[in-house]
Amino acid sequence: MKLIRVELGSRSYPVMVGDGILKKAGATLARLGLTSSPVVVSNATVMRNHGNTVLKSLRDTFGPSPVISIGDGERFKNHRTLIKIYRGLFRARADRHSWIVAFGGGVVGDLAGFAAATYMRGIPYVNVPTTLLAQVDSAIGGKVGINTEEGKNLVGAFHQPRAVLSDAGVLSTLPSRELSAGLYEVVKCGAIRSEALLDYMERNLRKILQRQTKSLVHVVSEASRIKAEIVSSDEREEEQRMILNYGHTVGHALEAATSYRRFKHGEAVAWGMIAAVGFGHELGLMARHESRRLVGLIHRIGRLPSLRGIACEQVWEALKRDKKSRSGQVRLVLLPRLGSTQIRHDIDQQYFEYYLKKFLATIGNIEV
Amino acid sequence: MKLIRVELGSRSYPVMVGDGILKKAGATLARLGLTSSPVVVSNATVMRNHGNTVLKSLRDTFGPSPVISIGDGERFKNHRTLIKIYRGLFRARADRHSWIVAFGGGVVGDLAGFAAATYMRGIPYVNVPTTLLAQVDSAIGGKVGINTEEGKNLVGAFHQPRAVLSDAGVLSTLPSRELSAGLYEVVKCGAIRSEALLDYMERNLRKILQRQTKSLVHVVSEASRIKAEIVSSDEREEEQRMILNYGHTVGHALEAATSYRRFKHGEAVAWGMIAAVGFGHELGLMARHESRRLVGLIHRIGRLPSLRGIACEQVWEALKRDKKSRSGQVRLVLLPRLGSTQIRHDIDQQYFEYYLKKFLATIGNIEV
Repeated sequence: MKLIRVELGSRSYPVMVGDGILKKAGATLARLGLTSSPVVVSNATVMRNHGNTVLKSLRDTFGPSPVISIGDGERFKNHRTLIKIYRGLFRARADRHSWIVAFGGGVVGDLAGFAAATYMRGIPYVNVPTTLLAQVDSAIGGKVGINTEEGKNLVGAFHQPRAVLSDAGVLSTLPSRELSAGLYEVVKCGAIRSEALLDYMERNLRKILQRQTKSLVHVVSEASRIKAEIVSSDEREEEQRMILNYGHTVGHALEAATSYRRFKHGEAVAWGMIAAVGFGHELGLMARHESRRLVGLIHRIGRLPSLRGIACEQVWEALKRDKKSRSGQVRLVLLPRLGSTQIRHDIDQQYFEYYLKKFLATIGNIEV
Repeated sequence: MKLIRVELGSRSYPVMVGDGILKKAGATLARLGLTSSPVVVSNATVMRNHGNTVLKSLRDTFGPSPVISIGDGERFKNHRTLIKIYRGLFRARADRHSWIVAFGGGVVGDLAGFAAATYMRGIPYVNVPTTLLAQVDSAIGGKVGINTEEGKNLVGAFHQPRAVLSDAGVLSTLPSRELSAGLYEVVKCGAIRSEALLDYMERNLRKILQRQTKSLVHVVSEASRIKAEIVSSDEREEEQRMILNYGHTVGHALEAATSYRRFKHGEAVAWGMIAAVGFGHELGLMARHESRRLVGLIHRIGRLPSLRGIACEQVWEALKRDKKSRSGQVRLVLLPRLGSTQIRHDIDQQYFEYYLKKFLATIGNIEV
């Protein structure tokens, strides 16, 4: 088992990555000082695949845990589901000393974490992510929230979990497309901080895609380590944490411009990274062989949904609406070389819009 | 002007109490480092009475501020209104660098504060309370939240304001019953921490009820000072802050048992304090003359809505459902003497229920 720590003073917590972690969840969490039985928030798919394992482990240590089951998918990440969780907590007689286990993918983690941040003004929670994307990204760092009609994650909080338990074994039941979507975020971690991780992925991609446990534990723990380091140095995304948004500026806009239907988040980020590489190329950043390595690795992971038919105006509008750029100026994370970042506040908007048009017109077949 | 500080490290803030503070709101807030125009959350009643004053002051310093107007009254303190505020913030193009002015009574402060705690994962807000109750109680301390079908304040956060501006002048438009309701919370502050404040109220009650500004500034600033001290030593109500709940255990239960219709919050707390004095008397706490002083002062402030027809079972059920006692044991704040508190975790439930029955049977005419 790999142990990573998110260092945030009194709110520090461990991220545990390994194989078979679910079976030991109860005992592990008891050792961290959690007492009494938690309320589990999950969904039917996750419960069917792995519910027995985690419930048995929790029961052996804490006694039976009530389960609040929510809908599966991003469209459930809203106020209605949040209210359902509050009601479930109330019915389970949860009080200020109760705690929550968020057991599922990013939607479960974001919703259960936000419920924990706000139920009785805040109760503890533990993340047990069951998708690769959640393990390497959303489960770490305390960003929780919901979507509203106006946009994604416009409502939320920073509420750090007490622990993150990432079991590589649960990834065996993950649909292939979800696995790839998570791997793009792993690529992002390598791109911004660790050429060694990119190198490992290049050499072991087949094993990873075949879900060989050892290789999955490696990529999850390396990506978790990178995310944990960045969050530890900048919890609230003042500046440093912004580098985690590499590929996200265009990625978010692509998701929004296609009404969140065409791309999985990781896939949109993959296109966003390709776009950023291309734009960096225009600006004379990053050597050609490095650009090609990064774009090559992304395409080797799987087939990305096409960019065909997406209007530049819609992407551009969505980009300007993004909450990180609402004050006006578009900020972009770029790579001067693999493993190293540059946050650019000085992007010429017209130039970037022009580039975006070209990128979409060539349906992402950029020259690097 | 009286200046009180809530000391919470990097989240410390000033509470300013005086006459004519609204007129200087803009300049005052600019001196605290706030920039760009805020979004004002208020209601129609408050805007009609004092809107021009505060908007002009903000405009002179920051430029025009958009106003989000919400319904007036506790029944609006729910998810629907919260979503309305989010939408208003979004339409006002509020981003992570925007801030909110909560301009109104407790409902406005709790809602606007909770919206600030959760909009884009948290933006700053300033409290400009316009009722006595909000000035001396809810505006200070960062407790924000909403009610759900299951109960009051079950959903919320701790989110400290950047400043509290309490203008005693605005209390001139407050209905008498609201003034009295606020004064009971001032009595509570005196009862738990300052015999001198009770003494001042006894000697100046007529001036206070006639809203003589100097006397109002005195009671608001003294009560604010007491609340600020307690919050500074225990932000999250681990133990110390619990003494602010003096009178609230029975008070909350009376409100719930009458479906929040019969009593204003302060009135229910007044009855709760009288009940606590009587129960303390049964336990042999507090000298008879002190008990009589406290009960006497409460009754001099105004006529409390009657306890007639309230069934003990309902009060008892509500009391056990209260979020602070859900784990089982009822905790009670009692006074060994005026200005000094005792938190009792060892209350014999049967005995307390028996006493409550007697208290309601005599419609609050307890012997002390």
